[in-house]
Amino acid sequence: MDKLNLTKHISSQFNEEIEQIRNHVMAMGGLIEQQLSDALTAIATSDAELARQVIATDLVVNDWEIRIDGECTRIIAKRQPAASDLRLIMAIIKAISDLERIGDEAERIAKVALESFSSAQQDLLVNLENMGRHVAQMLHDVLDAFARMDVEAALAVYKEDKKVDREYEAITRQLMTYMMEDPRSIPKIMNVLWSARSLERMGDRCKNIAEYVISFVKGKDVRHSGEDILEQDARS
Amino acid sequence: MDKLNLTKHISSQFNEEIEQIRNHVMAMGGLIEQQLSDALTAIATSDAELARQVIATDLVVNDWEIRIDGECTRIIAKRQPAASDLRLIMAIIKAISDLERIGDEAERIAKVALESFSSAQQDLLVNLENMGRHVAQMLHDVLDAFARMDVEAALAVYKEDKKVDREYEAITRQLMTYMMEDPRSIPKIMNVLWSARSLERMGDRCKNIAEYVISFVKGKDVRHSGEDILEQDARS
Repeated sequence: MDKLNLTKHISSQFNEEIEQIRNHVMAMGGLIEQQLSDALTAIATSDAELARQVIATDLVVNDWEIRIDGECTRIIAKRQPAASDLRLIMAIIKAISDLERIGDEAERIAKVALESFSSAQQDLLVNLENMGRHVAQMLHDVLDAFARMDVEAALAVYKEDKKVDREYEAITRQLMTYMMEDPRSIPKIMNVLWSARSLERMGDRCKNIAEYVISFVKGKDVRHSGEDILEQDARS
Repeated sequence: MDKLNLTKHISSQFNEEIEQIRNHVMAMGGLIEQQLSDALTAIATSDAELARQVIATDLVVNDWEIRIDGECTRIIAKRQPAASDLRLIMAIIKAISDLERIGDEAERIAKVALESFSSAQQDLLVNLENMGRHVAQMLHDVLDAFARMDVEAALAVYKEDKKVDREYEAITRQLMTYMMEDPRSIPKIMNVLWSARSLERMGDRCKNIAEYVISFVKGKDVRHSGEDILEQDARS
C-alpha cells in the first residue's frame, strides 16, 4: 500500500512537471506565432518599429529553447520516465528545436521589413503576405495538434505543406519574371525571394512537428516515410 | 562485492552501447561528408550520374537518423544514464538532426548539378565549389571534434563559420551583378544562388554541432550566447 502511494506520488509529480514543460512549449509557440504575425504585418505596413521588436524577441525565443531543453534533460535524469513518457519528452525536445528555427526565419523576414520598397514592388509583397498568413495558420494548427496530441490535426498540417510549397514555387516564378523585366530591382526582389524561402522552410518545420505528433501517438517513427505510408500509419 | 560487480557490469555494458552509438554517428557523418564531396564534384564536372547517386544516398542518411534516434531513446530507457552520460546522449540526438539536414542540403546541391550551364556560367561555379570545399572541411573538422569531444577544435569550427558567411555574401553579390548584366540567365543563376545558400546553412549546422560539443564538455548550454561569451566559456 505504501509502495503504491509512493508510486502514485512520484507519478503525479512527474505528471505535474511534464504538464509544466508542455505549458512552456505552448508559451514558446505562442511567442513565435506572434513573431511571425508581427513580421508579416511589419512587411505589409512598412513598420520598422514592429520589425525591430520581432528581431529583439528572438533572444526571448532562444532563452525558451535553452530553458525547456534543460527542463527535459532534468526530468529524464530525475524521474527516469517509462517508455511512452520518454518518447513524449523526446518529441518535445525535437519540437522546440524546430520552433526556435521558425523564430529565426521570422527574424529574417522582419529584417526585410526594414527595407523600403517602391509602390510597384509593394504589389509583390501582397503575395508574400498571403503565403505568410497561410504558414501562420499551419503553425497555429500544428501547435494545437501538439497540445492535444491529435493525429488527424497533425496529418492535416502535414498535407498542407504541399500547398505551401506550390505557393512558394508560384511566387518564385513571379519574382524571377519581375527581375528579368527590371534588372535594377534585383537586389530588392531577392530579399522578397529570401522571405518566401523563409516561409517555405517554416512550412517544412511545421510538417516536422506534425511528424513528431504522429510518431509519438503511434509509437513509430514516421519521419521520412512519405505521405502515403505516413497517412496509413497515422490512421492505423 | 556482488553489487559492485553488477554496477561495473552494467556500466561497461552501457559504455559498449554508447560507443556503438558514437560509431554509428561517425558512420552517418562519413556518409554525409561523402555526399557533400560528391555533390560538389558533380557540379564541377557536370556529372549527372554522380548527382543522382548523392540524391539516392539521402534515403540511407534518413535511415541512419531514425536508427540512431531509436538507439538513443532505448539506451536512456534501459540504462537510465547518469547526468553526464545523459547529456552526451542529448548531444548526439541534436547532432544527428543537424547532420541529416546537412545531407538534405547536399541533396539540393546535387540537383543543381543536373542542370546544364553555359561556359560563362561555369566560371561562376568555381567560386561555389571553393566555398563548398571550405564547408566540407568544416564538416570534417566538426565531426572530428565531436568524435574526440575536443573543445578547442569545436571552437575553431565555430569561428570558421564567420568566414563561410563572408564567402557567401561575396558570392551573392557576384551572382546578383551577373543577373543584372544578363537577365535571361536569372533562372540558372538563381540555382547557383540557392546552392550557395545551402552551403551557408550547412556551415550554420556545423556551428550548431560545435556548440553541442562545447556545451557537453563544459556542462553548460552555450547556444545563442554569442562568440565572446562562448569562447570565454569554452576556455574556462
